[in-house]
Amino acid sequence: MTTCLIGLDWGSTHLRAYRYDGQGQVLEKRALPYGIRQLPEGGFPAAFEQAVAQWPDVPVLACGMVGSRNGWLEVPYLDTPTSVDRLAGALTTLNAAGRTLHLVPGLRDPSRPDVMRGEETQVVGVLVQSPEIARHGCLLLPGTHSKWVSLRDGEMTGFATVMTGELFALLTQHSILGASLPPAVDDENAFRRGVGTARDSGAAGALSRVFSARTLMLDGSLAATSVADYLSGLLIGDELRIAVAAGWADASSSVQMVGEGALCDRYLKAADIFGLTIRQAPDATTSHGLWRIAAAAGLIPTQATA
Amino acid sequence: MTTCLIGLDWGSTHLRAYRYDGQGQVLEKRALPYGIRQLPEGGFPAAFEQAVAQWPDVPVLACGMVGSRNGWLEVPYLDTPTSVDRLAGALTTLNAAGRTLHLVPGLRDPSRPDVMRGEETQVVGVLVQSPEIARHGCLLLPGTHSKWVSLRDGEMTGFATVMTGELFALLTQHSILGASLPPAVDDENAFRRGVGTARDSGAAGALSRVFSARTLMLDGSLAATSVADYLSGLLIGDELRIAVAAGWADASSSVQMVGEGALCDRYLKAADIFGLTIRQAPDATTSHGLWRIAAAAGLIPTQATA
Repeated sequence: MTTCLIGLDWGSTHLRAYRYDGQGQVLEKRALPYGIRQLPEGGFPAAFEQAVAQWPDVPVLACGMVGSRNGWLEVPYLDTPTSVDRLAGALTTLNAAGRTLHLVPGLRDPSRPDVMRGEETQVVGVLVQSPEIARHGCLLLPGTHSKWVSLRDGEMTGFATVMTGELFALLTQHSILGASLPPAVDDENAFRRGVGTARDSGAAGALSRVFSARTLMLDGSLAATSVADYLSGLLIGDELRIAVAAGWADASSSVQMVGEGALCDRYLKAADIFGLTIRQAPDATTSHGLWRIAAAAGLIPTQATA
Repeated sequence: MTTCLIGLDWGSTHLRAYRYDGQGQVLEKRALPYGIRQLPEGGFPAAFEQAVAQWPDVPVLACGMVGSRNGWLEVPYLDTPTSVDRLAGALTTLNAAGRTLHLVPGLRDPSRPDVMRGEETQVVGVLVQSPEIARHGCLLLPGTHSKWVSLRDGEMTGFATVMTGELFALLTQHSILGASLPPAVDDENAFRRGVGTARDSGAAGALSRVFSARTLMLDGSLAATSVADYLSGLLIGDELRIAVAAGWADASSSVQMVGEGALCDRYLKAADIFGLTIRQAPDATTSHGLWRIAAAAGLIPTQATA
């Protein structure tokens, strides 16, 4: 089958390459360890050449931190509210080893301000697969820096970052709460207890309760090996509490979550304790998003997309 | 003048010794670098001997981390609500280099749970100097682990810890927000901007806004050298927001703050932005508190106190 597009998902710690046919089906995938923080000798061009080696000379579209200030070429953020078409109209190009590389801009919510880079393409990937979410929905992308994205009438209207994953790492690795503890052991009850504490903290929020990770342990009612799960529950719970308080989520509508695995399972359990509904969004969102943006930008030959 | 008591303020990083006359006046002070984390050769006994060397053989009363699990002897916490008399009745004694050392218990608020060790003596020191606060007041002890203490009818009714100082250190030293930044430069406007952002975050709280320390810098509207002051304002502001949301403080009554110096100045400025009144409590609270507890415990000869 004819190759019509190459897509690159190029973040801080990963580089994934997709080769598409004319209908947007992924014919071949590659995963390289060359995130922008860990490039091979030869830097960006060398990593790029490996990612696309032997593939036909078709348009290449990349999203993620490759377009950041520390990336290959800084691509200015596009302000929300915005649409897929406006995103596609704001690509920046770069001559890369004889090919033309198109870079997707990140998004900026000027009302906070807040920024994302890479997640905008995941959001587009959900939209193309779930038109009803695009009309009126909320997307959650959990992670080191979780993103909450509001969608209305096909537009990305705004978003916010909560540093839940990074804060968890800081507290468990460097704070009095987590440092010098024995290795963590899975304890779902401790996780649920943390979620419940965050929920019950009300407007004061979980920072008013986070010292309890230590005092419960001193009290003998929380095992030292369970402190990490308790903190995980407290912080993920606080993220949900924030989402409700800020109006990003409410009990009457469902939140769509992008991702899978153990972290997403934690969000599902926490949402249950909050009485919130979180649904898992369609998979393979980045590869779908790259295809959709390329199509909107006119990078795909029209006979292929017809 | 006759020496009637020796008091020790023995924390994680400091050891201060006070020699009192029979009226509770401090005749002599010593400061040693022997906090419980940095003891000299010979450990606790050696540090103790240096602290009281050449002083008369009178009762010795110590407060602080010396009575913690990692201290000289673990003294069980006393639960709130409690009074000075009950605190004085719960001293634990230890034979120390031929002298009797009395240790003040820490306090535990079982409703959260929360704990303090050392601060309870500072609180007593304020009470003895300010009876009106003891009747109905709120005490703030800013620091790595800030404490908010409620007082009613002479009793310490409950308290809570907010890890503002530690969180500030974590975010500025280890997080994406603060790591790899140039050295901080004082910027009061950035501090005030952080406080205002925390105040305006409402029930969602400052964790919903903390990523702005990075995005404002990327935006060019916050200097990289001002990120630390912005984060300081955001976190101290969030502590005040929490205090209001949790009912520890309100606009109609004043909070008494124990301490002085640059950190307390930040709390005064932040309180002003919140429309809260914070007053500085009387100084030398620990030495006053030790004297008051010793008197209530009957450690001072009655002819001296009469």
